[in-house]
Amino acid sequence: MSELRYNLISREWVIIATKRAKRPRDFQKEKKDNITLATYKLDCPFCPGNEHLSKEETFRLNDQKGWKVRSIFNKFPALSYMEDVQRKNEGLFNWLSGFGIHEVVIEHPRHDINIALMSDKDVEDILTTYKQRYLDIQNVKNVEAITIFKNHGPQAGTSVEHPHSQIIATPIVPPQIRSRVENAVRYFDVTGSCIFCKNLEQELQEKKRIILETEKFVSFIPYAALSPFTIWIFPKEHKASFADIDEKELHDLAIILKSTLQKLYYGLTDPDYNFTIRSIPVNEKGTEYFHWYLTIIPRISKTAGFELGSGMFINVVRPEESAEFLRLT
Amino acid sequence: MSELRYNLISREWVIIATKRAKRPRDFQKEKKDNITLATYKLDCPFCPGNEHLSKEETFRLNDQKGWKVRSIFNKFPALSYMEDVQRKNEGLFNWLSGFGIHEVVIEHPRHDINIALMSDKDVEDILTTYKQRYLDIQNVKNVEAITIFKNHGPQAGTSVEHPHSQIIATPIVPPQIRSRVENAVRYFDVTGSCIFCKNLEQELQEKKRIILETEKFVSFIPYAALSPFTIWIFPKEHKASFADIDEKELHDLAIILKSTLQKLYYGLTDPDYNFTIRSIPVNEKGTEYFHWYLTIIPRISKTAGFELGSGMFINVVRPEESAEFLRLT
Repeated sequence: MSELRYNLISREWVIIATKRAKRPRDFQKEKKDNITLATYKLDCPFCPGNEHLSKEETFRLNDQKGWKVRSIFNKFPALSYMEDVQRKNEGLFNWLSGFGIHEVVIEHPRHDINIALMSDKDVEDILTTYKQRYLDIQNVKNVEAITIFKNHGPQAGTSVEHPHSQIIATPIVPPQIRSRVENAVRYFDVTGSCIFCKNLEQELQEKKRIILETEKFVSFIPYAALSPFTIWIFPKEHKASFADIDEKELHDLAIILKSTLQKLYYGLTDPDYNFTIRSIPVNEKGTEYFHWYLTIIPRISKTAGFELGSGMFINVVRPEESAEFLRLT
Repeated sequence: MSELRYNLISREWVIIATKRAKRPRDFQKEKKDNITLATYKLDCPFCPGNEHLSKEETFRLNDQKGWKVRSIFNKFPALSYMEDVQRKNEGLFNWLSGFGIHEVVIEHPRHDINIALMSDKDVEDILTTYKQRYLDIQNVKNVEAITIFKNHGPQAGTSVEHPHSQIIATPIVPPQIRSRVENAVRYFDVTGSCIFCKNLEQELQEKKRIILETEKFVSFIPYAALSPFTIWIFPKEHKASFADIDEKELHDLAIILKSTLQKLYYGLTDPDYNFTIRSIPVNEKGTEYFHWYLTIIPRISKTAGFELGSGMFINVVRPEESAEFLRLT
C-alpha cells in the first residue's frame, strides 16, 4: 500500500509508492560507469600549475606544499558583478539586470579525489573556504542571498572532473528560500518555536531515519524525503545563517559530511549527487525562526511529467529503509 | 550580459545567462539517438490484441476497425482507490493513506507513432479521452486534484515505447497547483482580473514570444521560461477547469498541440519532453481567478545543485530566440 507524507518545512507532499518498491541496493551504480581518473591532468584548469587557465582568485588556503583549496571567479558566470543594478517592471513582466557573483571552489589539488575519500582536515578546509567566501560576499551591496552547492557527476550537472563546488550570490531571494522562510515565520508566529529545531527533535525521538549523529550535527533521511536517498544534515544549535558556523562546528560538519558521503560512495557505488547549503537571506540574519542546513540529493531517479505537473514526487523506497541501509553501510 | 526575469504566475525567478549562450539549434538531438520502432510488437501490453496483458479498461473510443484510444488502470499504480482514507498527524509529521486513481491513456493502436505525426483527428480523440476521464474522476469521493501528463522518451521518464499518457488523481491539492491558485487569488483580490488572462494579453501585445495562434488557443514561450523551450498553451477563453473545455476547443487544441509538438519534432529532432495540463482543484471549479493551461517541457537541459538549492533556473537561450526558431521551423 502506498502512503502520502507531508514535508511541513518545504510544504511538499510525497508519495511513498511501495507497489513500485525497490530495495535500496537496486540504486547502486554499475561499476562500469565509474572510470579511473588521472591524479593530475595537463590541460585541467583546476590542477596545480594551470592557475593561469582560470579566472582571478578570490581566496586560498595554503600549506607548505602549495595551495590546498582555492576559490576563483567562474569563467562562464551565470551572473556577474556590476555597480549599477537596473530594474524594469512592465505589466506582469519584472526584469532585473544580471547582477551577482559566481565563484568556483577548487576543493583539492588532486584531480582524481572525491570528498568521500579525503581526510577530515581536507574537508574542513573546503568548509572553511565556504565560510570565508560567505562572510565576504554577504557584505557586497545588492547581494540578497548566497547559494553554496556542489554537482558531483554528469547526472548532477557537472562537466568538469576536478573536484569543485560553486557559490552563486543573487540580487533576489530565490523562491525556495523565500517559501521556506515564510513557512518558518508562520510556524514561529503560532508556536514560538523554530520549525527546524522541532523537526530535528522529532527525528531524534523516532530515531529510525537517523544516519549519523555527532556532538554538533545530525544526518538523517527526512520523514517525507522526496527521493530514495535525500539526506538532511542539521546543526543541533539554532543558527539562522551559515555565516555563524563556529570552529568546532566546522570541524564536526567536516566529519559528518565526509562520513555520510562515504556511506553513499560505498553503499551506492559512488552515485552522482548534488549538495547545497540553505541559509537565511543575508539581510535577515540572526533571526529566531530560520535554521541553516545542508541537503544531499543523490541523482538516482528521474523527474517525469507528474513531478513537473504537480510538484509532488514519487519515492519508491521508504525513508526508514534508506536510512537503515546507510546506517549499516 | 545576463538578466533575471520573474514569472508572476509561478513566482519563480529565472536567470537568462547569455554568457553561456547557445543557439536554439544546439539543442537538436543527434539522429543516432533516434531508433526506428516496429508498428506492432507481440509483447507490448498496449498493442491491439494484447489487451489481456494490461489492467481493466476504464474508457475507449472505437471506429470500424477497433479501438482508437483506450484508458486503463496502471499496472504499477503510484496511488490506488480505496473506500476508507486514513490520516495521521503526529507533531510535524502528516500522513495520509495512498488513496488515488492512476490510469494510462493508450493514445493510438500503432506502437511507433508520435503525437507530432498523428492526424488532427487522432489527437482530438486523445484529448476527448482526457476530458471524459477527467469528468468521471472528478466525481470520485476524496479526489481533490487531477494531473494529466505525458512522458515522451527516456529523459522524460518513460520506459514504455508505445505512445501513452497518464492521469493521476490525488487526495490532496499538489503544492504547485496550490501555490498557483494562491497567487492567482491574491492577484484577483487586488486587481479584479485573472492573472492568466492578463499574461496572455501582454504576450499577444508583445508578439515576440508567440509560436502559434488559433481561434481558441495561443502557444508561446513564456517571458520568464525556466528552460530553453518551455511552452505554454493557453485557452483564450477564461475557464478554470479543463473539465469545461467544449467541442470547438477540443478540436482547436488538437490542432495547436500537434502543430507545436511537430515544430519541436522537426526543429529539435524529436526531443524527449513532458507535457501536463494544469487545472483548478476539482472542488474549486468555476472560479474567476484560475485558468487552466497546458505546459510542454522539452527535457534538454539538466537541473544541478543551484536549481535544487535555490529553486531558480538558468536558461541559456532568450525566450524570444527560442520562439522565433520555432515560428520559423
